[in-house]
Amino acid sequence: MTGTTSRRPHDGFHVFDTTLRDGAQREGITLTVADKLTIARHLDDFGVGFIEGGWPGANPRDTEFFARARTELGLRHAQLVAFGATRRAGVRVEDDPQVAALLESGAPVVTVVAKSHDRHVELALRTTLEENLAMVRDTVGHLRAHGRRVFVDCEHFFDGYRANPEYAKAVVRAAHTAGADVVVLCDTNGGMLPAQVHAVVSLVHEDTGARLGIHAQDDTGCAVANTLAAVDGGATHVQCTANGYGERVGNANLFPVVAALELKYDRRVLPEGCLSEMTRISHAIAEVVNLVPSTHQPYVGVSAFAHKAGLHASAIKVDPDLYQHISPELVGNSMRMLVSDMAGRASIELKGKELGYDLSADRELLGRIVERVKERESAGYTYEAADASFELLLRDESERHRTGEPAARYFRVESWRAIVEDRPDGTHANEATVKLWAKGERLVSTAEGNGPVNALDKALRLALERTHPELAGMDLVDYKVRILWGEQGTKSVTRVLVEMTDGRGEWSTVGVGTNVIAASWQALDDAYTYGLLRAGVRPGG
Amino acid sequence: MTGTTSRRPHDGFHVFDTTLRDGAQREGITLTVADKLTIARHLDDFGVGFIEGGWPGANPRDTEFFARARTELGLRHAQLVAFGATRRAGVRVEDDPQVAALLESGAPVVTVVAKSHDRHVELALRTTLEENLAMVRDTVGHLRAHGRRVFVDCEHFFDGYRANPEYAKAVVRAAHTAGADVVVLCDTNGGMLPAQVHAVVSLVHEDTGARLGIHAQDDTGCAVANTLAAVDGGATHVQCTANGYGERVGNANLFPVVAALELKYDRRVLPEGCLSEMTRISHAIAEVVNLVPSTHQPYVGVSAFAHKAGLHASAIKVDPDLYQHISPELVGNSMRMLVSDMAGRASIELKGKELGYDLSADRELLGRIVERVKERESAGYTYEAADASFELLLRDESERHRTGEPAARYFRVESWRAIVEDRPDGTHANEATVKLWAKGERLVSTAEGNGPVNALDKALRLALERTHPELAGMDLVDYKVRILWGEQGTKSVTRVLVEMTDGRGEWSTVGVGTNVIAASWQALDDAYTYGLLRAGVRPGG
Repeated sequence: MTGTTSRRPHDGFHVFDTTLRDGAQREGITLTVADKLTIARHLDDFGVGFIEGGWPGANPRDTEFFARARTELGLRHAQLVAFGATRRAGVRVEDDPQVAALLESGAPVVTVVAKSHDRHVELALRTTLEENLAMVRDTVGHLRAHGRRVFVDCEHFFDGYRANPEYAKAVVRAAHTAGADVVVLCDTNGGMLPAQVHAVVSLVHEDTGARLGIHAQDDTGCAVANTLAAVDGGATHVQCTANGYGERVGNANLFPVVAALELKYDRRVLPEGCLSEMTRISHAIAEVVNLVPSTHQPYVGVSAFAHKAGLHASAIKVDPDLYQHISPELVGNSMRMLVSDMAGRASIELKGKELGYDLSADRELLGRIVERVKERESAGYTYEAADASFELLLRDESERHRTGEPAARYFRVESWRAIVEDRPDGTHANEATVKLWAKGERLVSTAEGNGPVNALDKALRLALERTHPELAGMDLVDYKVRILWGEQGTKSVTRVLVEMTDGRGEWSTVGVGTNVIAASWQALDDAYTYGLLRAGVRPGG
Repeated sequence: MTGTTSRRPHDGFHVFDTTLRDGAQREGITLTVADKLTIARHLDDFGVGFIEGGWPGANPRDTEFFARARTELGLRHAQLVAFGATRRAGVRVEDDPQVAALLESGAPVVTVVAKSHDRHVELALRTTLEENLAMVRDTVGHLRAHGRRVFVDCEHFFDGYRANPEYAKAVVRAAHTAGADVVVLCDTNGGMLPAQVHAVVSLVHEDTGARLGIHAQDDTGCAVANTLAAVDGGATHVQCTANGYGERVGNANLFPVVAALELKYDRRVLPEGCLSEMTRISHAIAEVVNLVPSTHQPYVGVSAFAHKAGLHASAIKVDPDLYQHISPELVGNSMRMLVSDMAGRASIELKGKELGYDLSADRELLGRIVERVKERESAGYTYEAADASFELLLRDESERHRTGEPAARYFRVESWRAIVEDRPDGTHANEATVKLWAKGERLVSTAEGNGPVNALDKALRLALERTHPELAGMDLVDYKVRILWGEQGTKSVTRVLVEMTDGRGEWSTVGVGTNVIAASWQALDDAYTYGLLRAGVRPGG
């Protein structure tokens, strides 16, 4: 059970992930068993040493997760951990069904949460300080006797230490003496600052001799720093969650903690080659939990290495390393130049270069594009998240500059219409009709969908596939609606972002208008146009 | 110019805000002059000592801001700061138009950015190390001679200190000797960790004797902790931005920095009574910059004091202070119980109590409500952000439990229809028809809107106002669309959240379905129903 194969991270430092248990407490997250299995695979790919999967016995979902994990998860790097509590007060550990469920889960490692704050023992557990110590000893001893590796989470440790340091340390000693491998000091309410964490961890480490871990909540905005401060104080086990998900403000974010250890401490805490998977895995987990990935997350956010200011953009041309703290490729991210009305010509020129357009030779064209971007952005467009629409704009302006006409398109829209009607049985009919011209043909199609945009998308494809069979491999993968200039309810301007894939890559387009359906249509039009361009199809009506 | 009235924060510690300058570099933010004036008023209400308004002369918008600020902003607490650079290399400071624009701005305080990293001087500025020192001396001296208070931002200080500590300190000394009140050490690339910041700030403070400030970017996720580490090292001036807005990952977030200083350091850095405005001001500024307030922001996020886990919920009934690091009222926030399928009966019981329903007496009813919430949440509903829909559910179930029938509603929908059609001129027609029954009358209305949901909203009001004139004071203030279970484009399930106001308060409702229009209709139906309930109108068709 305690054996580690050569593929597992070395045991001297533990990267312990609790996304599936503590992270799932985040407001807005609800995980199915399938979600949990998928996330566990991503975490294993990332190379964490331990994956805390849930509390077997506490709810049917977590029990099922452990049952399926045994057969369905072939973990390469990580060991699976079951979470539970110390035995109930006044009950023999052998008779406690909650403890039995931990063994039944089959997980080789168990985290046991124990109270370490005297007031919590008395008010929440309603037992004596002495009985609480016995509960820790008995539970750890029982699990060890059954061959499990045991970590003990000392809940509310830092608040408890402030209130009664001797008792808090007595809990650490009880766990350590009974055979816990790691005693984890938890800042459960998240109120600590790094200097305090560093001082307490150092003292407890010296006084008890136990191997210590840290579990920090982010209520002061310092969870990452608190985790690192604990490492500075002697902790060799860090509990984190992917993207910092967790109750209230969240937990210490796995990604910046690991990045700091690897890149700033120069400490190898992940298996070789895993660090550069960070950005991909962060976004993949966000997808599974159905939260928009934070654009501004350290290291992995799409904005983390994005440069906007004209001031910087010109200097970045000289040497990018002057303006980034690490090379973004180390964590699988990349530098990006933003197109924005704050950016000057230098940014647009760089962005053009990124897309393969050399604008440096033609100052007049560059000026026109800058003007056009400013004009569109003031109307609510954003090109920061819609590279494909930006490229179409660039292409149009280049062509107009060269020939006086916009670039040729693949189709011309005559008209479209969408109808949504509710039926007496509570279902809805969605019907769309589009009328197009392409390759000299007039194409008219009507389609039904499970929403008006879906109906329009289907009608547009149906019409256009007759002349452009290349559309067959393209799929809409994301559709985002944002209401701009709020406080006016449905009268506001709507911005729609559409993401499409052809199986080899993705592209994003934008549409804007007071009408959500019309804005969606614009984004769809751009998306199919760009897809055909990408496929190498020659435009021309 | 340097005088502070009794209403101004004391000068011993500076809370310096740079939302309007450095914060505006954030991807997705574009501020008009009116936005900047509004934000400045909010920051002044919050009680910061200094508001950096922009770079006069660098762009017409910033120049206009300072011109209008002089007459339109009556700042109670803060002093306005103009940002600019040292004079150009090889140019007399008197002849540098950029420096002249700083004086012309009329701001009593000027921040001058200076290079302090030797490589940046040579590669980005393309001048000598000695000339750079002269540029600092001359610029500070010139501004001081014209009666301005001067702060110097040492750009890339920490990277520069690592590369060439003597030169970095020479820049600090040059600024200090020339009369700068504060020399601000900037972690421009944001790569530092708190222990490093603490060490460097302490050493520089001891070596130079200059008054020091800190400007931290958040690229390691440690900007708040780095700011506090600098304060621990002797800095008495902190540069922050509201909600941490800023380039790439962002800047040190003003709110957790100030909260830590006030509540954890017990240091009075804001005028009396301002701290409790924090949550309101954070959200108001997010509105102005048109970003959704981060729900998980420390101290001020709606989730910052929200409790979900069944484990905690039962203990919170005993003593809330056991589970929160500060009393949320101190920062103008409040504790919230979340309704969620992870929560057990205890959470729903508490939530009911919050809304005025005592569910403790009837275990069977409570169980039914828990079941119903679970069922709806698995279909994609969320009640965490839709209290009004939750209350309607609670009301329905209570009534059904008592009488066998759901609670009476105000109206019964016979059918509705929405049509969107594009016109040859590029505009769109949106038309909706609704057929309702209320107070025994059949109400049929058709309305046009600038989108299908707006048209439906108008048609519904038009119909219902005939029997329920109370609707007149109600307005839709926010409309959010979220695509659930992504990766399927427009075929996914859509969740719509609607927020409505009656001028006295707001309420939120939810609708879910594969069809965005139908989901919007559900949320509208709930929103008007709840509004009438709130207005004390007796239901009954």
